[in-house]
Amino acid sequence: MNLSKVRMVLIATSHAGNIGAAARAMKNMGLERLYLVAPRDFPSEEALVRASGATDVLQQAVVCDSLAEALQGVGVVYGSSARQRTLAWPEVDVRGCAVQVSEVSLQDEVAIVFGRERIGLTNEELQLCHTLLHIPTNPDYSSLNVASAVQVVAYELRMAFLSSESAPVVEPVVADALARAEEMAHFYTHLEQTLVELEFLDPKNPRQLMPRLQRFFHRSQPTQLELGMLRGILSAALKKKKA
Amino acid sequence: MNLSKVRMVLIATSHAGNIGAAARAMKNMGLERLYLVAPRDFPSEEALVRASGATDVLQQAVVCDSLAEALQGVGVVYGSSARQRTLAWPEVDVRGCAVQVSEVSLQDEVAIVFGRERIGLTNEELQLCHTLLHIPTNPDYSSLNVASAVQVVAYELRMAFLSSESAPVVEPVVADALARAEEMAHFYTHLEQTLVELEFLDPKNPRQLMPRLQRFFHRSQPTQLELGMLRGILSAALKKKKA
Repeated sequence: MNLSKVRMVLIATSHAGNIGAAARAMKNMGLERLYLVAPRDFPSEEALVRASGATDVLQQAVVCDSLAEALQGVGVVYGSSARQRTLAWPEVDVRGCAVQVSEVSLQDEVAIVFGRERIGLTNEELQLCHTLLHIPTNPDYSSLNVASAVQVVAYELRMAFLSSESAPVVEPVVADALARAEEMAHFYTHLEQTLVELEFLDPKNPRQLMPRLQRFFHRSQPTQLELGMLRGILSAALKKKKA
Repeated sequence: MNLSKVRMVLIATSHAGNIGAAARAMKNMGLERLYLVAPRDFPSEEALVRASGATDVLQQAVVCDSLAEALQGVGVVYGSSARQRTLAWPEVDVRGCAVQVSEVSLQDEVAIVFGRERIGLTNEELQLCHTLLHIPTNPDYSSLNVASAVQVVAYELRMAFLSSESAPVVEPVVADALARAEEMAHFYTHLEQTLVELEFLDPKNPRQLMPRLQRFFHRSQPTQLELGMLRGILSAALKKKKA
């Protein structure tokens, strides 16, 4: 486990106090890298007060315009969101996520994304996440405060960190570097354009084709070399078509 | 595990907002019994705001003058407190505590006591606790917000509750049936033929292209539906080429 490779990404947080509380929760558990996507009120006095001694985490926070921007350089993306969705997406609970991150963070950047209070993640944002993160809650009252969600995840990451410190180092399963989020985004654009050209995807009636393909390729977590092969195939298909 | 036998006891909480946040954290995890020992500012508007939908937990909160009064009828007492002490006391971490409570709560009342912000538990209060509860934190920044401490403990209690219920915590990642070996074999033949037709794969000099692609698709374990989409794309690429 390398906690310094883990970034916590908060999307469009509406209450500044929650940003401060999230910073404190992170620092308490040894996490320092906070990303804020379009925060409504930041920097703010309220965030500083609630951050208590974790002002350094707030001051170093990276403010971004979009989730895609916050995911630059990231290999694996988890999305925490309460909203129910129609399309099933791979899901893991917090403890399982922490065990995975323990290994992945030895070589890749990891992002854990927290959706808006109440509304959660948009479908577009969800599709940037490889795996949904499920925090078990009372089914009759499941709406967690965003700083509380950060606290629970940060706590499980610390528990996994402590157990990795006392365990022999495990070699990462994949030796090549995983494709980064922005490379995956380019690939999806390339894939979609190709499928339209091939008339396999009808832009007027896209159905769930792209989300399903994204879910599949997220799950397989291609390396940079593998992504290169896949893009080569797409280029070959288009070139042939145009020849 | 019987969550209704567990009471959370907050001692002399100074910020009303933390009482509300603790109530919300409890209810999120299925806990409802809040005891407040000499709260500085309760009831309060700020507590109601931060409790969000957990106002019932606040309204049913039992306000006491002393810790001893809050522990009436309790069989087992855990004390969570950050303060260093000279006197060694039995100690357990949160996960270990949750496992113990899971069993004890089947017949006994359990209390988990949270000390004052900054000052923690007095020696007198500590001596009313059977076991100290240790929340692992960053040694350089260990002062947890009291509502965050309640959140972490409540989360571990819920995890223990779920495992005692033996309810599935993790959703199966993919609900559809995985492609079978013979279907994968057909897919690889189809893929190889297509790549040759597209002149992406040179049969005279195949290099390691097919083994690498197979390793990638094996790892991603496509479902039957996903394999259908992938084969559809291959057919579309060939059809276009021949058209």
